[in-house]
Amino acid sequence: MTDNTSTCDIEIRVRYAEVDQMGVVHHSRYWEYLEMGRTELLRRVGVAYRDVEQAGVLLVLAKCSAKFHAPARYDDLLTLTTMLTKLGTARIDHSYQLKRTSDGAILVTAETTLASVDASGSIQPIPDLLRQAIEQRG
Amino acid sequence: MTDNTSTCDIEIRVRYAEVDQMGVVHHSRYWEYLEMGRTELLRRVGVAYRDVEQAGVLLVLAKCSAKFHAPARYDDLLTLTTMLTKLGTARIDHSYQLKRTSDGAILVTAETTLASVDASGSIQPIPDLLRQAIEQRG
Amino acid sequence: MTDNTSTCDIEIRVRYAEVDQMGVVHHSRYWEYLEMGRTELLRRVGVAYRDVEQAGVLLVLAKCSAKFHAPARYDDLLTLTTMLTKLGTARIDHSYQLKRTSDGAILVTAETTLASVDASGSIQPIPDLLRQAIEQRG
Amino acid sequence: MTDNTSTCDIEIRVRYAEVDQMGVVHHSRYWEYLEMGRTELLRRVGVAYRDVEQAGVLLVLAKCSAKFHAPARYDDLLTLTTMLTKLGTARIDHSYQLKRTSDGAILVTAETTLASVDASGSIQPIPDLLRQAIEQRG
Repeated sequence: MTDNTSTCDIEIRVRYAEVDQMGVVHHSRYWEYLEMGRTELLRRVGVAYRDVEQAGVLLVLAKCSAKFHAPARYDDLLTLTTMLTKLGTARIDHSYQLKRTSDGAILVTAETTLASVDASGSIQPIPDLLRQAIEQRG
Repeated sequence: MTDNTSTCDIEIRVRYAEVDQMGVVHHSRYWEYLEMGRTELLRRVGVAYRDVEQAGVLLVLAKCSAKFHAPARYDDLLTLTTMLTKLGTARIDHSYQLKRTSDGAILVTAETTLASVDASGSIQPIPDLLRQAIEQRG
Repeated sequence: MTDNTSTCDIEIRVRYAEVDQMGVVHHSRYWEYLEMGRTELLRRVGVAYRDVEQAGVLLVLAKCSAKFHAPARYDDLLTLTTMLTKLGTARIDHSYQLKRTSDGAILVTAETTLASVDASGSIQPIPDLLRQAIEQRG
Repeated sequence: MTDNTSTCDIEIRVRYAEVDQMGVVHHSRYWEYLEMGRTELLRRVGVAYRDVEQAGVLLVLAKCSAKFHAPARYDDLLTLTTMLTKLGTARIDHSYQLKRTSDGAILVTAETTLASVDASGSIQPIPDLLRQAIEQRG
């Protein structure tokens, strides 16, 4: 198992539709943000996840956890830091830190484990192309 | 073009995540309700849309319109009436009326046109099995 | 801290809009299901969460974790079991088990911690009315 | 009723969670894009919709229509043009054109009418501040 500290920052503007009647981003929506972070992290090492999936390899969420420290609100500008923390044979771990851009307040911290599977759901080794791209960057 | 007045009522309980910071169901979410109505309307004529799609026929939204008369709120119980209004060679029209169950107030009225396409997006005649199921009920 | 094993089962039909291009429910959507479970669990002890919130007490998600064992697909009928596992001074813990109704296969297990706050986000004791309703049922 | 041709282009990257099992953006999600377009159009005339709402004026969707010409897919970069087409006493009309950025293909065209209401849902004239900002730009 390789230790890999690839990291990527993206900015996200909170959409109106993402906010619930408490006036804060609904917790279900943060998982979309984290997924955006993973897509951009891969893009920066030269891989489009779209291509990975078209090659028949799916990275599915196996487990996740999050802590919600402070709320994000409509029209807030957020900075999401996505870190690749472990690259296993058939799994990839990420951790995340979501901040409010204006003052750097930490809003959400989270961790996910993706499993590499084929179309039938069977565990598959992470394809070499993807592994090499990640390791070269690490 | 056949005129067909198949109709189906379903009940929907508004989820917390569907409500925005005005305290009302976000308009984007009503389209999920209408889709649930279409699924149940088909089921009542004996067709699972899941099977239609697995047979390679996709019913994609070609156009839609809606009027929002009054808001639905968290935990409201709603009654959605879905009507199949036209069955063309390669299109199906529906109209919808969404009411608050408690007092019958009309909240949303809408119309949609679905097009029948194959996996590549080319227009396809509606499959006989689907057509017959709908017409027998009509 | 009281140990409380209130539990509640609800059935959920997977919506088309909830399924991603892998053909499985997108993980972000399961959190909506869990929230539905919490709403119904409260309703069975005689409390509408809508009323709790209108009384100025908000139950916000403080942390959560989930494991995804097998995918749910469009039109699947699911059974969600929601268990209230801990009732603290200002927090409520739940655990969840989501099964496919047809064969009982476990799809998702999860845990959440809610914090009781006022409109400004300050921690508040759980209101007596809510506490008593939950404890009588326990 | 003033005729006003304010216009605004924004770029949107399609999220994984927005795509359904046909591999295309689910139609319900386009309404979130259009709302982002309206927010940015207002920002360019110097108004944050967040402030409008905090001043007690809500712009709620009264009606809408859309045509879906071609699908958007995961990771596509899209260009949304939002046009303010009519500014009435208590309503604002917009029209929209969503294109794929790479080749300019038109994917969705749509129109919406917003009504200006207060917190109780009663129709309210559009506030002068908002009207003046829009008209100066027009």
